[in-house]
Amino acid sequence: MEKLYVIKIGGNIIDDETKLSSFLQSFALMEGGKILVHGGGKLATKLAKQLGVEQQMIDGRRITDAETLKIVTMVYAGSINKDIVAKLQAYQCNAIGLSGADGNCIVSHKRGSNSPLGVGGIDYGFVGDVDQVNSAFLKSLLDQNIAVVLAPITVDVTGQLLNTNADTIAQETAKALSSLYDVELIYSFEKNGVLLDVNDESSVIETIDPSSFKKLKEEKKIFEGMIPKLDNAFAALQSGVKRVIIGKAEELNQLISGSSGTSIVQ
Amino acid sequence: MEKLYVIKIGGNIIDDETKLSSFLQSFALMEGGKILVHGGGKLATKLAKQLGVEQQMIDGRRITDAETLKIVTMVYAGSINKDIVAKLQAYQCNAIGLSGADGNCIVSHKRGSNSPLGVGGIDYGFVGDVDQVNSAFLKSLLDQNIAVVLAPITVDVTGQLLNTNADTIAQETAKALSSLYDVELIYSFEKNGVLLDVNDESSVIETIDPSSFKKLKEEKKIFEGMIPKLDNAFAALQSGVKRVIIGKAEELNQLISGSSGTSIVQ
Repeated sequence: MEKLYVIKIGGNIIDDETKLSSFLQSFALMEGGKILVHGGGKLATKLAKQLGVEQQMIDGRRITDAETLKIVTMVYAGSINKDIVAKLQAYQCNAIGLSGADGNCIVSHKRGSNSPLGVGGIDYGFVGDVDQVNSAFLKSLLDQNIAVVLAPITVDVTGQLLNTNADTIAQETAKALSSLYDVELIYSFEKNGVLLDVNDESSVIETIDPSSFKKLKEEKKIFEGMIPKLDNAFAALQSGVKRVIIGKAEELNQLISGSSGTSIVQ
Repeated sequence: MEKLYVIKIGGNIIDDETKLSSFLQSFALMEGGKILVHGGGKLATKLAKQLGVEQQMIDGRRITDAETLKIVTMVYAGSINKDIVAKLQAYQCNAIGLSGADGNCIVSHKRGSNSPLGVGGIDYGFVGDVDQVNSAFLKSLLDQNIAVVLAPITVDVTGQLLNTNADTIAQETAKALSSLYDVELIYSFEKNGVLLDVNDESSVIETIDPSSFKKLKEEKKIFEGMIPKLDNAFAALQSGVKRVIIGKAEELNQLISGSSGTSIVQ
């Protein structure tokens, strides 16, 4: 099967023009099919502030009310997505930017839509959990040698746009395409990888398998915020994804070659 | 050849949620390939005002400075484009929303980029004039029975996004696809068609051909603002477009069947 890279870049890269350009230059040069999933960065929060739209946060999560949904749709699917696509075109990499509504490529449902209070008693507002990825459609683009750039906005079956976690989009897209491609899923962020000591960038754990993950958790040697990412990584591997890598966005080439970052293996 | 409709909707429809929904319901039900090109509406101007970005206008045209480009990219390619696509999905019409940067589908150059002052001594800023429409790529989407929704934002060869006139995008897209499809180009707006008396909605001219156009102009019986639209319509016909119709967005079915609006013929 052909190789496909599904790469998630976090907000800190999006907020840093130099880092983003450098990342996109590396991305443009990569061989094989490629899908880039981007998060939101600080631009939406900044715009909301300028417009006087108050941002409600519960447990560190943004509550997406109707006004906030309009803002994140503009910023994620408009501003950030089109800037990335235009930059990739400048680097001679044909790309297409999509929200989940485009080609119905990522269909979700409103979180907690069966309960007025949502998950855990919290109503997150217009937030979507992914149900289905239209892999045939994405393949039709990849077959034309077009890189797909996914904004973290999806759509439900009633045509409601929903704010959606970019990590989840990356994971679900990687899983859905694993029957058509040899998929490698890369979570790129600001750190060198999964660290034994969160303050020491040289303490990267090169490989994590289920038994070492269990041990690391038991010994509380792993940063708590990293656990859901690793849980998702193992879930992706169990659904047919070939390799999951977590590491630094600026070292994309090394992440792919395996000389940097943390590899999650079964 | 298969039939393809290229339909431009103006700002007044976009600004009116009821009219827009009604138009999109009719659009969703249309048979054949379809491309929808949307203008901007008042949302960008409103957002610019809220953000304190002053809008320079010269001769009734917006000057697109860097800040305004960010705003129109967000509003046109983000907000309006994704709202239209999501609504079409709700109406069971699979659709994809694109800027010109996506799949490099509409490549332009900065107006007056050879001269620091631009056309006619005016620097319009980040405004693009269309050079090329990637018809093979658009066909690959239409072949999948996906309606294409184009935002009036294009890209130049350096990856610079550019604000672009939606009428021009519609015309250039119709022309480029006329070697692959039987193309009908529809300019839909707030009036019933080309009017003999601009204040009398019942004075629609049913058909205009080059000789009657000449006569109408000579007798000054045609609203001046309509002349560039008609010039463009005749240019499109000369480039292979089969039919051009100008008429009311709310009467889309009648425009297609020929029972409403003005037909421009050779």
